[in-house]
Amino acid sequence: MVREGILVVISGFAGTGKGTVVKKLVESYDNYALSVSMTTRNPRPGEVEGKSYFFVDKETFEKKIQEDGFIEHACYCENYYGTPRAYVEQQMQEGKDVILEIEIQGALQIKKMFPNALLLFMMAPSAKVLHERLVGRGTETPEVVAKRMKRASEEAAGIENYDFILINDEVDKCVQQARNVIESAHLTPGRNIKFIEKTREDLQGISKGE
Amino acid sequence: MVREGILVVISGFAGTGKGTVVKKLVESYDNYALSVSMTTRNPRPGEVEGKSYFFVDKETFEKKIQEDGFIEHACYCENYYGTPRAYVEQQMQEGKDVILEIEIQGALQIKKMFPNALLLFMMAPSAKVLHERLVGRGTETPEVVAKRMKRASEEAAGIENYDFILINDEVDKCVQQARNVIESAHLTPGRNIKFIEKTREDLQGISKGE
Repeated sequence: MVREGILVVISGFAGTGKGTVVKKLVESYDNYALSVSMTTRNPRPGEVEGKSYFFVDKETFEKKIQEDGFIEHACYCENYYGTPRAYVEQQMQEGKDVILEIEIQGALQIKKMFPNALLLFMMAPSAKVLHERLVGRGTETPEVVAKRMKRASEEAAGIENYDFILINDEVDKCVQQARNVIESAHLTPGRNIKFIEKTREDLQGISKGE
Repeated sequence: MVREGILVVISGFAGTGKGTVVKKLVESYDNYALSVSMTTRNPRPGEVEGKSYFFVDKETFEKKIQEDGFIEHACYCENYYGTPRAYVEQQMQEGKDVILEIEIQGALQIKKMFPNALLLFMMAPSAKVLHERLVGRGTETPEVVAKRMKRASEEAAGIENYDFILINDEVDKCVQQARNVIESAHLTPGRNIKFIEKTREDLQGISKGE
């Protein structure tokens, strides 16, 4: 049974702790690779080139679009965001699952082009908890919190497009959920076509006494 | 988040050790209930009434069919086999996942009537290993082994109807696979409609400042 790499897309409401869960997931298991997005927006304090994002100018980004260098890209708040193709394809060829943390718009593009991609949507245990977390951070103005809640409300409309939801109640439990879901996804018939075909051929061969 | 019981159907080739895996799974975790089938065939040595099967006569079985007392039933080798409805429904209402070990024919009936049922197909690591296991048991004549291999070959045509495959290489690993797959299935959007709807309503409420 050859394990084929899966493209794993993680989306979810702001404030659910996607970044923390993804980081722990990639650190805890060596069969996952984290895809780093490219963007034209300015780095924020503390963001690291090549870790947080690849920061490029608009011209560079648009040239890369022309060259089919992204597996998905979107324009959001007047800035481009995209997933560079080369890294994803290379890691998957090595049998790794590649994890992308992207918005719903990009997630749907991915699903169209890669029907075997696995789409995960991270939620808080409840809307109330999500709101409390955003307020509790103390780093956002009430206007920003309100904006994020509104955005969460809009994004929630698309949850049915995802394969699984993850509930981030405790980080370690959520990492384990993500791990189980990804490992389970390796066991769908659609991701094991070669193995199933081979088994069928061999069963026929043996039952015919070959 | 209320956990709704899932109807879990396990099928697979004879000789893959379905019975052993299912037994261990139900013993290891208390949120699973094992459904016992009813049949009109005669008990084999060692089989226990109410554990292996409920053994009944043809008349009783057919009366129960009339009363809609089965969630699925099939006739195989001139004997009836069926899954009594009452036990399954009662356990699921209590939030348990109910596990059925049934043939592909019954599995497809289940999927039609219960679209949220989870269909698992157990395979050996290869056709060769399956054949070796059947021969190695030493309890079957070469004719029986040949018949089982032929049957496996026929059943293999239906694998794509299942949600996941399980590979029984080592029993404990396969139990863990089954466990992960079932727990993951609890996280699909389709099995969390109420939770998602509730979150949506609350998000709207909060973002409108209610």
